[in-house]
Amino acid sequence: MNKETKTTPYPLVAHTSMTQATRIKVSGVTIGGDNFTIMAGPCAVESRNQLKSIAEAVHKAGAKILRGGAYKPRTSPYSFQGLEEEGLKYLKEISEELNMPVVSEIMDVRYIPQMLEHVDILQVGARNMQNFTLLKELGLIRKPVLLKRGVGAKIDELLGAAEYILKGGNKDVILCERGIRTFEDTTRATLDISAVPILKKLTHLPVIVDPSHATGQSDIVPALALAACAVGADGIIVEVHDNPAQALCDGSQALSPEDLEILIVKLKGIAEVIGKKFN
Amino acid sequence: MNKETKTTPYPLVAHTSMTQATRIKVSGVTIGGDNFTIMAGPCAVESRNQLKSIAEAVHKAGAKILRGGAYKPRTSPYSFQGLEEEGLKYLKEISEELNMPVVSEIMDVRYIPQMLEHVDILQVGARNMQNFTLLKELGLIRKPVLLKRGVGAKIDELLGAAEYILKGGNKDVILCERGIRTFEDTTRATLDISAVPILKKLTHLPVIVDPSHATGQSDIVPALALAACAVGADGIIVEVHDNPAQALCDGSQALSPEDLEILIVKLKGIAEVIGKKFN
Amino acid sequence: MNKETKTTPYPLVAHTSMTQATRIKVSGVTIGGDNFTIMAGPCAVESRNQLKSIAEAVHKAGAKILRGGAYKPRTSPYSFQGLEEEGLKYLKEISEELNMPVVSEIMDVRYIPQMLEHVDILQVGARNMQNFTLLKELGLIRKPVLLKRGVGAKIDELLGAAEYILKGGNKDVILCERGIRTFEDTTRATLDISAVPILKKLTHLPVIVDPSHATGQSDIVPALALAACAVGADGIIVEVHDNPAQALCDGSQALSPEDLEILIVKLKGIAEVIGKKFN
Amino acid sequence: MNKETKTTPYPLVAHTSMTQATRIKVSGVTIGGDNFTIMAGPCAVESRNQLKSIAEAVHKAGAKILRGGAYKPRTSPYSFQGLEEEGLKYLKEISEELNMPVVSEIMDVRYIPQMLEHVDILQVGARNMQNFTLLKELGLIRKPVLLKRGVGAKIDELLGAAEYILKGGNKDVILCERGIRTFEDTTRATLDISAVPILKKLTHLPVIVDPSHATGQSDIVPALALAACAVGADGIIVEVHDNPAQALCDGSQALSPEDLEILIVKLKGIAEVIGKKFN
Repeated sequence: MNKETKTTPYPLVAHTSMTQATRIKVSGVTIGGDNFTIMAGPCAVESRNQLKSIAEAVHKAGAKILRGGAYKPRTSPYSFQGLEEEGLKYLKEISEELNMPVVSEIMDVRYIPQMLEHVDILQVGARNMQNFTLLKELGLIRKPVLLKRGVGAKIDELLGAAEYILKGGNKDVILCERGIRTFEDTTRATLDISAVPILKKLTHLPVIVDPSHATGQSDIVPALALAACAVGADGIIVEVHDNPAQALCDGSQALSPEDLEILIVKLKGIAEVIGKKFN
Repeated sequence: MNKETKTTPYPLVAHTSMTQATRIKVSGVTIGGDNFTIMAGPCAVESRNQLKSIAEAVHKAGAKILRGGAYKPRTSPYSFQGLEEEGLKYLKEISEELNMPVVSEIMDVRYIPQMLEHVDILQVGARNMQNFTLLKELGLIRKPVLLKRGVGAKIDELLGAAEYILKGGNKDVILCERGIRTFEDTTRATLDISAVPILKKLTHLPVIVDPSHATGQSDIVPALALAACAVGADGIIVEVHDNPAQALCDGSQALSPEDLEILIVKLKGIAEVIGKKFN
Repeated sequence: MNKETKTTPYPLVAHTSMTQATRIKVSGVTIGGDNFTIMAGPCAVESRNQLKSIAEAVHKAGAKILRGGAYKPRTSPYSFQGLEEEGLKYLKEISEELNMPVVSEIMDVRYIPQMLEHVDILQVGARNMQNFTLLKELGLIRKPVLLKRGVGAKIDELLGAAEYILKGGNKDVILCERGIRTFEDTTRATLDISAVPILKKLTHLPVIVDPSHATGQSDIVPALALAACAVGADGIIVEVHDNPAQALCDGSQALSPEDLEILIVKLKGIAEVIGKKFN
Repeated sequence: MNKETKTTPYPLVAHTSMTQATRIKVSGVTIGGDNFTIMAGPCAVESRNQLKSIAEAVHKAGAKILRGGAYKPRTSPYSFQGLEEEGLKYLKEISEELNMPVVSEIMDVRYIPQMLEHVDILQVGARNMQNFTLLKELGLIRKPVLLKRGVGAKIDELLGAAEYILKGGNKDVILCERGIRTFEDTTRATLDISAVPILKKLTHLPVIVDPSHATGQSDIVPALALAACAVGADGIIVEVHDNPAQALCDGSQALSPEDLEILIVKLKGIAEVIGKKFN
């Protein structure tokens, strides 16, 4: 007999563990339930000015949460690795100036105290989705975690990774579909749009979509953002840059602030059709 | 020097070959351009009564084109293979009764005369997407062809397959995204929703989505149909059965006629938001 | 109740249907059982001289079966489509001159009589693996069929496709693993080497490997051919060209005749280690 | 202009950076070059007795390096997580008793000192292949690192991950192909056997294969191990258990010690054919 536990692999994450969908409140913004939330900002924080300019633009366009990477996981060690602690400080300052909560990626358990001080939502990137020692520590904190699906991860594995966090006591986990690796190579990854309704059947946690990393092409990002809203996601996280050609990271997938404004008008229309509120 | 042709692999299919999007007219229904079209019906024609009952229901719900398989490609030779010519006759009769054009799958060049007599749109299934002798013959006919993407086919190969048909002189090809094979196994296939805007950039041909085969699960089909509309598809082809548990083929992915009615109300809302007309 | 047949999907193909592995005899060459067989030749027949020169070289190197395409399935309709009937005639003539049986691809049911007259083994290409009308007709002939796995086909589907042929009465089917579509793009496809022992567990039919199409790179073809032998395959089918840079089709994956000679020496060594006879 | 570095993404890892293949010496065993090395042992250390018994058996069979997990990354937080520090102590003790170096997985930077004290080779698991903060720290140590390819990782990403380690100053990295995620589900993963010769073209680092995790089925592990040797790998890492049915982790993929003995006899034969020495 194999002695491994035979119970449901993710009892706390499972839909049956809650009577209603989880709603996560962060500085006045509620994620989940009937709400559709826009998280937007640059791929990487490049300077205080760059961040401030983009943050003001996405705030004006209607985004409620500011995204921006201070620590950047990069395939090559010679690529820009982020402004690190300096970047976190800019995020904190501009978050306070605009009264707009901030999400940023945590790459290692050792940075948790620093992150807790500067950001409102800690993002676990696709490459760290099964960094179980990190997940266990994030179960002990009291700030929300945005957990991205790995490019080679099955839905069951994403739910198992979330269970590590909930098991530690942190109930505030947001799941994020950001594209999986497939043979199709006209896009950077293949957005698994079906994952959204499948996850909604399996878990009470909010589910958002990242159309920027899924495609790597800014001109099709708006169409995918609309699809994400129509399919029932609780929000999107999207990269915006005011000068994509000069971006230090992933410029080709960034929307302009003007693109974002036009997109949000349509998103509001679709949210209304399917019965979501825009926050 | 390699002596193969070095020109664009699909010059006739390419966006640049036309000044505007291709519109395909079939018995009063226009597919493509600003129109959003619903094709619906059973996976397989099982009997005259079954087909009639479902056809009336989908017609009433707002579908404009009736789908139904007379020849069924099945993984196992012991599975139901379709009513064959008898099925085609029922399709023809009910099409005329309801004044509703019909799409059905062609599995071999030898059936072309029979198909031309009974159906309005000839469907090439995913398994035959690169049956080049069939594609060449379909280039010579004067009825529209609905070309489904193979589960292992890249977008470039879908366009190359369409080029075989256009090269023969038949300009009326409708492309169909129906899911690709990936490692994710909670769904039957992975709907490559990004393929829709990518195809729209590359070709002037109409692009529709098949959410039924992509997922294999009727309860998430409506969400994917809404996503298909939001992302910019020109229509959907969806399986409907009035008694899914008794279906001879793919019952688990069939919507009920009531599901379809509710879905179409929402689709109309989304079509309006993104500037499509509902036909 | 779903009325589909609930029996094993491939009873004739299943290992349990036979007391021993199927051996297929073709003009004095036995494929399957303890035998390891080399099939080699050009991707496409380009001219009588080209075919003769390559055929003599592979025959001298130790190949027992000559391969060569007369009808070529190509992604683009503008690529070289093969010499067609002329190519078949050259195959027949040179086969007789060298007393070496020939395998060539059948693309449509209409060509069956022609193929039966000219070739010894009829190959079904990866793109036609689920062309069920073709498979049914090939069940009625009395020559062996080489059935290639589709790039998006699961192992169960390959076995289901073979069942279509056996069900018709033709017991002589050779299965061929030739690589599947995955996210890895340094090779043309990903050779699923595990498919060989998996198939050996599930079926009594011979299983060979095509390392040329799997990789698309001639310099790693020999290593994969050795792996195919070590893993237990019953043979390989490999592309050879005496002037790869001038090849009308897939030159980049062709071995030179000298490469083949060196490869066969090593294959004989490995065959001996694992208890296979070299024929 | 994008300001990212435009140089080769992995200059230190690239084949061109060295005049010959890297050889890694660990306690008298040389990995790489002409040597073929067997690493074997249980998936997880379960007790001192279990480890000792299996270690003695694999040592007797001819394995040169002992594998065994003390910290286990598991999809579910409710699965056995390993004996942790206790497991490391057993590895150290038995390694000394048998004079057999040990490889074990490192899951977090915080465990590095502990690992350095107890094991000879630090393994980075597939899920941590792009845990860049871990990779950077491993660049600073002076023990070899066994870097497993992620199930969703391209070959370029594996090389990029290795570059993070070499850039820190640690030149002793062993790459390991252990299967990638594909649509084929008869095996746990799809062993990308082509990755071995491809990696050999691109890098001077040793490349080994893990047939146990690639397949998840002990009865086909030997065939894949033979293929790995034939294709040119520098060794294998294989799971062995003396009571697979009772294993706390992955019992279904473990060989028995007797299986390993029989396998090694054949591996020696194949190594000789392709010109490798057995160490």
